[in-house]
Amino acid sequence: MWRATILTLFPEMFPGSLGLSLAGDALKRGVWQLEAIDIRTHGLGKHRSVDDTPAGGGAGMVMRADVLAASLDAALASDDPRPRLLMSPRGKPLTQARVRDLAAGPGAAIICGRFEGVDERLIAARQLEEISVGDYVLSGGEPAALVLLDAAVRLLPGVMGKEESGAEESFENGLLEYPHYTKPRVFEGREIPEILLSGAHGKIAAWREAEARALTEARRPDLLKSPSLRAKRSNPDS
Amino acid sequence: MWRATILTLFPEMFPGSLGLSLAGDALKRGVWQLEAIDIRTHGLGKHRSVDDTPAGGGAGMVMRADVLAASLDAALASDDPRPRLLMSPRGKPLTQARVRDLAAGPGAAIICGRFEGVDERLIAARQLEEISVGDYVLSGGEPAALVLLDAAVRLLPGVMGKEESGAEESFENGLLEYPHYTKPRVFEGREIPEILLSGAHGKIAAWREAEARALTEARRPDLLKSPSLRAKRSNPDS
Repeated sequence: MWRATILTLFPEMFPGSLGLSLAGDALKRGVWQLEAIDIRTHGLGKHRSVDDTPAGGGAGMVMRADVLAASLDAALASDDPRPRLLMSPRGKPLTQARVRDLAAGPGAAIICGRFEGVDERLIAARQLEEISVGDYVLSGGEPAALVLLDAAVRLLPGVMGKEESGAEESFENGLLEYPHYTKPRVFEGREIPEILLSGAHGKIAAWREAEARALTEARRPDLLKSPSLRAKRSNPDS
Repeated sequence: MWRATILTLFPEMFPGSLGLSLAGDALKRGVWQLEAIDIRTHGLGKHRSVDDTPAGGGAGMVMRADVLAASLDAALASDDPRPRLLMSPRGKPLTQARVRDLAAGPGAAIICGRFEGVDERLIAARQLEEISVGDYVLSGGEPAALVLLDAAVRLLPGVMGKEESGAEESFENGLLEYPHYTKPRVFEGREIPEILLSGAHGKIAAWREAEARALTEARRPDLLKSPSLRAKRSNPDS
């Protein structure tokens, strides 16, 4: 079973949105397992303190390496094969390729930072993999963990039904997705493009590919330049 | 007051993580307001259907333009000044600069897509701004909306206290953030870098700047090439 262990100061944020819809159904069916652990259990002193002022001065507070290490070591056996992820805007940007890797593995242990950040020595000592969900700053790692888990869990076998599909999506072939249309045939004077009503499957596929390429060129030329995505497109099974 | 209106098939996912911690405290104090509206209220027929098969064939279901338009038009007055955002992996990537803009405005109306996507004609007819939180695929727009709102709400006046700071963060100066350290002085044989204990504020600032630059060069050279971030660095008040 795919297992997620979250270390957080807000265990009550989980399962949150992951308790509903696709991920929630799969959680109830035992397709995956979620455990949220309160870092404060290993806090120091009677106030269960988890942070302190930054060495060298400056605003904010830094999460202590010793507290996080104690929490992590208590939560994970030393031979736990799961990647240890630290959600952080300094991390490597999450991609659909990394999501697929994570979904294919045994699960993930996720440390959610808060405040100014986490003592750098913990990251080195426990070999944490810093992952960023995007180029913006959150109040903590928790919303980022919800996003990462949502992306990974939907790819687990038996989670998506036919309705949800997943075969042709943004990034799966290195392109943004082509535009979608459904009934009614006319909406506020706007018609469904003629070609989609033609029944000519080859032409429809070609039109969609051209639309996807044009959209990607217009909005995300960076995706077309990425070597990993170029490789991906020429070898979709890699 | 800053107002968020969410159109979703899962209104019970909100406030979710936004009901706790910084954003939750601010919600209780009335710094911002959150309204989650069930799209299915405007669904068709006795099953309140919101989607149909894609024109031109293919897997999955597409959310109907007419249902979403009815839901949106009922939720927002025609002169509502808030941007209408559609969370979508096809969108423009969310940046900290866009988050700052959103936080400085009146709020946001956010449409959460599900299934294969949303009928393209709705996006055009209601001039939706497609926003992506990252290059991965989620089960729906809801986790993305949680992330966007978390990022925006923490920047509202009166939300972050001294402890949370926000002055020196990743992206705020176009660089990833420098490493943090706090007590204890030695953790598992690893010491806090000498310079941070020196009390020499000028040297500490220079060291941090150099560390931030080296980290950004190593992990995210793309940030150093971005023209908007270059401009940002030379004019941090813009």
